[in-house]
Amino acid sequence: MFNIPRGTRDFSPVDMEKRKFVQKKMSSTFESFGYKEIQTPTFETLELFTAKSGESIIDELYSFSDKSGRELALRPELTAPVMRFYVDKLQMEPKPLKLFYFGNCYRYDRPQKGRYREFTQMGCELIGASTEEAIAELIALAYNAVINTGLKNINLRVGNLDFLKNQFEKNLSDFFPNSFNELFRLIDKEDFDEIKNKFNEYNVPNNNQKNFMGFLNINKIEDLSNYIENNNFKRYKEIFNLLKNEFSILNIIPDMKIARGLDYYKGIVFEIDAPILGAEKQLCGGGEYDLVESFGGKDVPTSGFALGFDRIILALETENFSFPVVKTDVYIVPVNEDMVRKSIEIAQILRNEGILTELDLLKRGIGKSLKYANSKNAEKVIFVGPDEIKNDSVNVKDMKSGDQKLIKINNLAKNLKNN
Amino acid sequence: MFNIPRGTRDFSPVDMEKRKFVQKKMSSTFESFGYKEIQTPTFETLELFTAKSGESIIDELYSFSDKSGRELALRPELTAPVMRFYVDKLQMEPKPLKLFYFGNCYRYDRPQKGRYREFTQMGCELIGASTEEAIAELIALAYNAVINTGLKNINLRVGNLDFLKNQFEKNLSDFFPNSFNELFRLIDKEDFDEIKNKFNEYNVPNNNQKNFMGFLNINKIEDLSNYIENNNFKRYKEIFNLLKNEFSILNIIPDMKIARGLDYYKGIVFEIDAPILGAEKQLCGGGEYDLVESFGGKDVPTSGFALGFDRIILALETENFSFPVVKTDVYIVPVNEDMVRKSIEIAQILRNEGILTELDLLKRGIGKSLKYANSKNAEKVIFVGPDEIKNDSVNVKDMKSGDQKLIKINNLAKNLKNN
Repeated sequence: MFNIPRGTRDFSPVDMEKRKFVQKKMSSTFESFGYKEIQTPTFETLELFTAKSGESIIDELYSFSDKSGRELALRPELTAPVMRFYVDKLQMEPKPLKLFYFGNCYRYDRPQKGRYREFTQMGCELIGASTEEAIAELIALAYNAVINTGLKNINLRVGNLDFLKNQFEKNLSDFFPNSFNELFRLIDKEDFDEIKNKFNEYNVPNNNQKNFMGFLNINKIEDLSNYIENNNFKRYKEIFNLLKNEFSILNIIPDMKIARGLDYYKGIVFEIDAPILGAEKQLCGGGEYDLVESFGGKDVPTSGFALGFDRIILALETENFSFPVVKTDVYIVPVNEDMVRKSIEIAQILRNEGILTELDLLKRGIGKSLKYANSKNAEKVIFVGPDEIKNDSVNVKDMKSGDQKLIKINNLAKNLKNN
Repeated sequence: MFNIPRGTRDFSPVDMEKRKFVQKKMSSTFESFGYKEIQTPTFETLELFTAKSGESIIDELYSFSDKSGRELALRPELTAPVMRFYVDKLQMEPKPLKLFYFGNCYRYDRPQKGRYREFTQMGCELIGASTEEAIAELIALAYNAVINTGLKNINLRVGNLDFLKNQFEKNLSDFFPNSFNELFRLIDKEDFDEIKNKFNEYNVPNNNQKNFMGFLNINKIEDLSNYIENNNFKRYKEIFNLLKNEFSILNIIPDMKIARGLDYYKGIVFEIDAPILGAEKQLCGGGEYDLVESFGGKDVPTSGFALGFDRIILALETENFSFPVVKTDVYIVPVNEDMVRKSIEIAQILRNEGILTELDLLKRGIGKSLKYANSKNAEKVIFVGPDEIKNDSVNVKDMKSGDQKLIKINNLAKNLKNN
């Protein structure tokens, strides 16, 4: 017996029904906003990911060598591959370019509850537009994509990395020995005890601490104007208000603690979470970023987000969402050996009409066939018998009501579709 | 600038539209036959594939190590993973169990025209049924899945590995030093010159050569009865006739040269090809096989097939098939800054109705907006202007006819859906 690799999963027909349902809901939402799907390879050159995220990412990657000795890695995320694709082949496309993706990603770390070594991400990248409307629409799209799956309780938090950096410069940079990275990682984890320790270690004056923490803890947009100069505040406020008013998102709050820990983000950043999931509540993260130039392309505004597909399914399950059920429309039973040929003909007629049709392939008796049909959630069982066939008819049994009706083969597909 | 790894591909929105179209057609066909989708991890333990295909497969695999030092490999095909899944978790499911998959596979060889290092396979496995009807239905499913994509010219060839082995035993085994593997590989490649060389090298008597080659070259089912004893012939003939008559497949021929080169196949084997593709014409291969017991499961009849997804798309393109076109339903242009908010509201109404709606995010003039709308194949452009808004209306321009009409916002979604 062989084992499945640690941290990976098999998906049964029941799992797949859920996954396809959620994928379809989110794809349709992306498409309704004018986004078009693309796909990139499962692996890329290792240098693509180190260029984006630094050498430290290597420990979290599955990497291996090409025949030519080049180092490759299974993708840990999809923004870098999409940007590589853009720089390589899509720079001449009309702007704004709106792309979405759905694909598996790989992370070489300790599997935990809700964290797998192979997981699925879905996301969007917006290239060539950075107006207030553009950024608000992108964020609204992420929000709508989650809501349209049927998930009820989610929150949208909107931050701004430029503001955060600005407040760091103003209050802390004179005291912090290194750049903001060390602190931003703690902010992203909301590890306030450790932040306090750092302040003490680096002798940050009380007033500076107070100012900075006051800024971090803002949760009303009016309070932000006390910290940020008018021009920058205006753009943030405009985006925030578009989301609240024109895009009708009520559960939105400003959150200056979003640090995202990734060097290429800048400006507006946002996260969506499902509080029902507890500590692992984050469903989506995104914002404005700069990658195109460092990848060798012509400078262009870019923004995007990634949604944790597996976690959205987990959140729906936790909310007891009613997913569609795997079923078979019709199960056909030839009552004797001579009826097999006619049964196949009838099955083919129904299948061509898009009716999910199974045929008894094991020549079992009627009792066993009914039991199997039940296990497959079959809605109807059709008995093909010699007496009925003489009149071009078959007996159709409704598995819910138990009723049985004689129906002409000519009317069969129409009749089954109407029920 | 970073390069895409050799032998892999990026898929643009136009490519994806084709791929999703074909995937959907094939999935619907599988579902209409009562097959249910499953998914397994992108990588498996290396030993899973060597157990199935022998150590020689290692050279053709992308492999790498787990944190615990276990060897993993990107899957080269999906039958072994599906059987691992079955043995692990699905043995208690009601039989027959009908499963299908869609996933990427990886092959570490020289990229050639139509052959990639990352490629897509779609396929079915039938577990727990081996009656004539069951095998005929499986083969008919493969055929229907290809035909339902819209492909016109394909051939189905049906062989039998037991017959081939039997004829080898009868005519050649006394002379061939090794088992049939050496010869079967040549038969599979249809390398008749080299087969002739082997016959001479091993001093196979003329009569034996003639008998064996006569068998190999059979293309009429009646001729088969001269070689194969009645009982075995009867099952083959019954399956063949079900395909021809009940499943209405006209372009079907017996082909005893299908050797498939894989040790775990047995009995009925089949291939589907598109002659329009020339040397790389094979779209599908499958048949009866034994893997469950060697994977530690309880013996059960199994059969299945895999379809080369990329090659089916190539065949459709070669037949000049009309794929659906990537388009945007509606492009909305606010005629001035004050109309942005109203435009967003209208966009959200249409998106909620499933209409693919783009909104001008760049505050461009009307001329530039129309040019962009054209490049996106937009069907309609909606101008949101102050005078019309006073009457709760907008101007809708049909991009094909050039006609422009004033439409009430209340009727907009309905009106757009009817056109």
